[in-house]
Amino acid sequence: MAPAVKVYGWAVVSPFVARAVLCLEEAGVEYELVPLSREAGDHRLPDFLARKNPFGQVPVLQEADDDLTLFESRAIARHVLRKHKPELLTGDGSPGSAAMVDVWLEVEAQQHHPLAAAIVMQCIVSPLTGRAVDQAAVDEDVRKLGKVFDVYEARLSASRYLAGDSVSLADLSHFPLMRYFMETEHAALVEERPCVRAWWEELRARPAARRVAELMPPDFGLGKKADQ
Amino acid sequence: MAPAVKVYGWAVVSPFVARAVLCLEEAGVEYELVPLSREAGDHRLPDFLARKNPFGQVPVLQEADDDLTLFESRAIARHVLRKHKPELLTGDGSPGSAAMVDVWLEVEAQQHHPLAAAIVMQCIVSPLTGRAVDQAAVDEDVRKLGKVFDVYEARLSASRYLAGDSVSLADLSHFPLMRYFMETEHAALVEERPCVRAWWEELRARPAARRVAELMPPDFGLGKKADQ
Ligand SMILES: N[C@@H](CCC(=O)N[C@@H](CS)C(=O)NCC(=O)O)C(=O)O
Ligand SMILES: N[C@@H](CCC(=O)N[C@@H](CS)C(=O)NCC(=O)O)C(=O)O
Repeated sequence: MAPAVKVYGWAVVSPFVARAVLCLEEAGVEYELVPLSREAGDHRLPDFLARKNPFGQVPVLQEADDDLTLFESRAIARHVLRKHKPELLTGDGSPGSAAMVDVWLEVEAQQHHPLAAAIVMQCIVSPLTGRAVDQAAVDEDVRKLGKVFDVYEARLSASRYLAGDSVSLADLSHFPLMRYFMETEHAALVEERPCVRAWWEELRARPAARRVAELMPPDFGLGKKADQ
Repeated sequence: MAPAVKVYGWAVVSPFVARAVLCLEEAGVEYELVPLSREAGDHRLPDFLARKNPFGQVPVLQEADDDLTLFESRAIARHVLRKHKPELLTGDGSPGSAAMVDVWLEVEAQQHHPLAAAIVMQCIVSPLTGRAVDQAAVDEDVRKLGKVFDVYEARLSASRYLAGDSVSLADLSHFPLMRYFMETEHAALVEERPCVRAWWEELRARPAARRVAELMPPDFGLGKKADQ
């Protein structure tokens, strides 16, 4: 029987799709990854917009049993864990501990993501797609991301994980973009900070993260395409 | 006795600070708004960075009883409601309903906020601070925000609120920026869409929203400052 949970994404998993898949892997939920074609514009077809995601983006999660369709990777992540592995959302279960998971999830989305995503786009995607790299913009983003990682270093020298002493979605949510960021020439931002480095090494060694990394070729699948 | 809850912000409340304050008002929690001086750089003082928010931003919420310090407005919002008015996070309480609150909260943060914030900056803040307006950028953002509101219109013609039939944080979280957006010459994006318009009228008529709006002068307090 086909798994009751479907994730719509690309065959080469984007960081957003990877966030959803990582949570399913962590929670041990069986799922089917349904690859759409970005080139063919599958995500802009009227049926996709009407029944999957009106914003025309992946990932989309569909649960046959609950007849539920969700989009936005961080909302999907919360839902999967709330249902199947709530301790990754609540930490040790005190109100303060769930709040710290929320704080560091927002830090991922608001402080880390925009900078790390811009650097990955410029340093990995632009060269592969023949777009010009704006070096001044990269330098500025690298400087700012260094300051963000300074905050992480201080935090991770006081607690083992971002939200406290147990691993949580706040940590996991960093994995997809970090996995690509660590392939850029700016990985030193992490290597140079011992607590951030240890945190990253532990994060990527998780069995679920290793399985997801296999769906994420370092060249986003773009190198392969260029060869065709 | 001073309230056990303190919110650090500016005297003229920014959209981020307003999000935190709105949730406290909705939940009926007594709080003290502690105004920092942006001009004096209070939010960059070593003590603020060490004990309040290492990213040097407001709002910050402090709870004396739980000895808890939180930053990031959307994390503060979740915490306040989880503790004092959880129905605004869970909808009708089914797992699917809490998930829809998360989806539309992410839509606010990822789809609505960047466009509405850019338009408000260009159309309200830039003229007041003597910065040049990039009209081409505004036009493009207005076009994109119109498409986002098309999705809202479809959604709100099927359910009364964004996450379903009960009001939730997903709706409330839009209030602070919408309050300023509706002062721009692009308010027609809302006026022209009957369901979005009715949703906005209901949102801003909430007693909590009216109290928060009083802390948000349409000119961000910048006009007043220019007079001094
Ligand atoms: N905020 C969304 C972003 C999703 C997103 O940007 N997805 C990309 C995947 S690489 C996409 O579908 N892009 C297609 C497009 O924008 O046309 C999330 O977290 O899920
Ligand atoms: N993602 C943060 C953003 C907070 C934010 O940008 N706050 C502004 C208030 S207007 C601030 O403190 N700016 C000071 C600065 O960046 O120097 C949140 O949601 O709380």
